[in-house]
Amino acid sequence: MSCHTEAPTEAHALVLDRVLTSPRDKLWRCWTDPVLMEEWFCPKPWQVRDVVIDLRPGGEFTTVMHGPEGEVFPNTGVFLQIDEGRKLVFTDAFLPGWRPSGRPFMVAEILFEDAPGGGTRYVATARHWTAEASREHEEMGFHEGWDAVADQLDALAATLQEG
Amino acid sequence: MSCHTEAPTEAHALVLDRVLTSPRDKLWRCWTDPVLMEEWFCPKPWQVRDVVIDLRPGGEFTTVMHGPEGEVFPNTGVFLQIDEGRKLVFTDAFLPGWRPSGRPFMVAEILFEDAPGGGTRYVATARHWTAEASREHEEMGFHEGWDAVADQLDALAATLQEG
Repeated sequence: MSCHTEAPTEAHALVLDRVLTSPRDKLWRCWTDPVLMEEWFCPKPWQVRDVVIDLRPGGEFTTVMHGPEGEVFPNTGVFLQIDEGRKLVFTDAFLPGWRPSGRPFMVAEILFEDAPGGGTRYVATARHWTAEASREHEEMGFHEGWDAVADQLDALAATLQEG
Repeated sequence: MSCHTEAPTEAHALVLDRVLTSPRDKLWRCWTDPVLMEEWFCPKPWQVRDVVIDLRPGGEFTTVMHGPEGEVFPNTGVFLQIDEGRKLVFTDAFLPGWRPSGRPFMVAEILFEDAPGGGTRYVATARHWTAEASREHEEMGFHEGWDAVADQLDALAATLQEG
């Protein structure tokens, strides 16, 4: 089951809003463990490696995307807010030490809520400083990409033992 | 005593680095109490009013500057990091709720350290996303303005009772 919505009242935002089958705590572990993140964070056959997760406000969040033809795209940002098991906010507008990055592209908010019928309502929102950045992100395949990795995330979470 | 330095290794940064006579805790109170902030945050006869200080990461920081001719300049941002009595980081890149602002202009870091000879080493750094923003901030009178309000801050702190 999949449902994409644009938040109508919010400028420059792209939203993925789905119900996943796994419980919140397992999804949270996949989001915050660098080793687990390698397994799901990119649409396969792409993969992230060298993941750095310093889970505190201002702490580093680095992923390096590797493509099947040897492509390498490093991406460094920082976490802004961490509500254990419920909410994660990060941005590429800063490098660690609150240093302004070359280009503030987006801030991402990931919400995890218990779904009424079981599983987890998973809402991933990417907010941008400009309409151009939002459109660029959409054309890069935001909906398809975030949807595909949400499937990978849910599948991986389902394999985890109770924490 | 006043000493301005540009951090030579840091891009687009403006720095005020001074030793103030007041202790850290009193300077901190002046920075974090909305009522006290009205007394010192603008070079007089300008004054801020309607100050909102929600002292947590992502919490609102709003000041409204009022000029002697009726000028009104509202400015809303958020706090990024609060180390009680030691460090305060805020930016205008976000509105509350981590919503991207119209224009990310700067991130400010205010450091308070016990000075070896008494008083407080006070380091206020404004970092910008672009060279243009940094130059604009300098031309707006960063050095003179932040220096003048540091004097006002120190004078006000000196009048406070022990907390």
